[in-house]
Amino acid sequence: MGSDDEVVLLDEYVSMFGMRPRVALALKGIRHESREEDLQNKSPLLLEMNPVHKKIPVLIHNGKPICESLIVVEYIDEVWKEQHPLLPTDPYKRAQARFWADFVDKKIFQCVRGWIRKWKDEEAIYEELIDNLKVLEGVLGEEPYFGGESFGFLDLAVISYYTWFLACEMECKFTFESKCPKLIGWGKRCLQNESISNSIAEPLKLYEFVLQLRKRLGVH
Amino acid sequence: MGSDDEVVLLDEYVSMFGMRPRVALALKGIRHESREEDLQNKSPLLLEMNPVHKKIPVLIHNGKPICESLIVVEYIDEVWKEQHPLLPTDPYKRAQARFWADFVDKKIFQCVRGWIRKWKDEEAIYEELIDNLKVLEGVLGEEPYFGGESFGFLDLAVISYYTWFLACEMECKFTFESKCPKLIGWGKRCLQNESISNSIAEPLKLYEFVLQLRKRLGVH
Repeated sequence: MGSDDEVVLLDEYVSMFGMRPRVALALKGIRHESREEDLQNKSPLLLEMNPVHKKIPVLIHNGKPICESLIVVEYIDEVWKEQHPLLPTDPYKRAQARFWADFVDKKIFQCVRGWIRKWKDEEAIYEELIDNLKVLEGVLGEEPYFGGESFGFLDLAVISYYTWFLACEMECKFTFESKCPKLIGWGKRCLQNESISNSIAEPLKLYEFVLQLRKRLGVH
Repeated sequence: MGSDDEVVLLDEYVSMFGMRPRVALALKGIRHESREEDLQNKSPLLLEMNPVHKKIPVLIHNGKPICESLIVVEYIDEVWKEQHPLLPTDPYKRAQARFWADFVDKKIFQCVRGWIRKWKDEEAIYEELIDNLKVLEGVLGEEPYFGGESFGFLDLAVISYYTWFLACEMECKFTFESKCPKLIGWGKRCLQNESISNSIAEPLKLYEFVLQLRKRLGVH
């Protein structure tokens, strides 16, 4: 890709889905413009670029939109393939990375959403969340990253939730480190990379967002 | 891949998700064994190979399982890449194919499921379904296939629902052809290929399955 590429990311600071392309762009060193969306008052550009779901993130590359966070990340990985490859080359490992990223969005997302909106008794939510995180710890095994020796596609899918667990910790009576030491060790390892730590949201800001959202939704 | 590859597909005849790897394997001419699962009484092999979701389809390639229909299809396309490529090579077109396949599983699936289980007033379900199919007709445009000149990844994602629309037609008071002529024309074009027509379920068998399922679930 030429250096005159125009890359715009329609994003929202707190979104786990927005964080993924943010991390991918940072790791690959791709110059881009980030535009923060107010999802209570979506911009005409967002509605034009993602008329189907009207959601962030949207990557606009030379005027053409790409939507849905994992699809955006695969696109970034395919276009800028030389710098920090994210998906492995082996088809089976690629399928596994995609499978577990999908697991994260099906299972972990529901837990975090349930915690924010207090859908269930909080003990039940925490138990479900920890159970799913333990499954992820099994996937990690003894490797430093889900991608093996380097931070890859599945690491990127999970790291956007990691900061949400830290936000969750401000309210629960346990530490995630006591329940899932391996996963927290992995998260700390990832955050040593400034491209990653500078791209994910601060837990305190996430927690403030949650408190405001609950107030707006009338959730007590 | 060598000719001594062992390829097993855990499948269910009526499943739109099972039909996708079935079509992909047929188009690429990959010799395999298909095992029909009874989802009321799942086999130990299914539970072992997909302990997370316990769902079909599962492709078992030389003993290693790959789950989730679109991930399975991408895997098949990456491993047996010479025969009938499914995903385009251009990253933007790949992202678009993935985006619309995801749209199908989010939007069209909900409509078909809602129709089977009578979640809503049937007129409302049909209206929603037709609205979504019209969106897909817009994506198809004037091309013979979603993949352009040849049947590709998105065609494969949609064709597994096409036979379900024909089943749905046995009950509704309109023909899909009268509402979405372009999409029905596309479906007929696809079915001229025997690898495809032999791999998707017969509408009458789907409809019989629906009637039995409704009876079992107590849906009237």
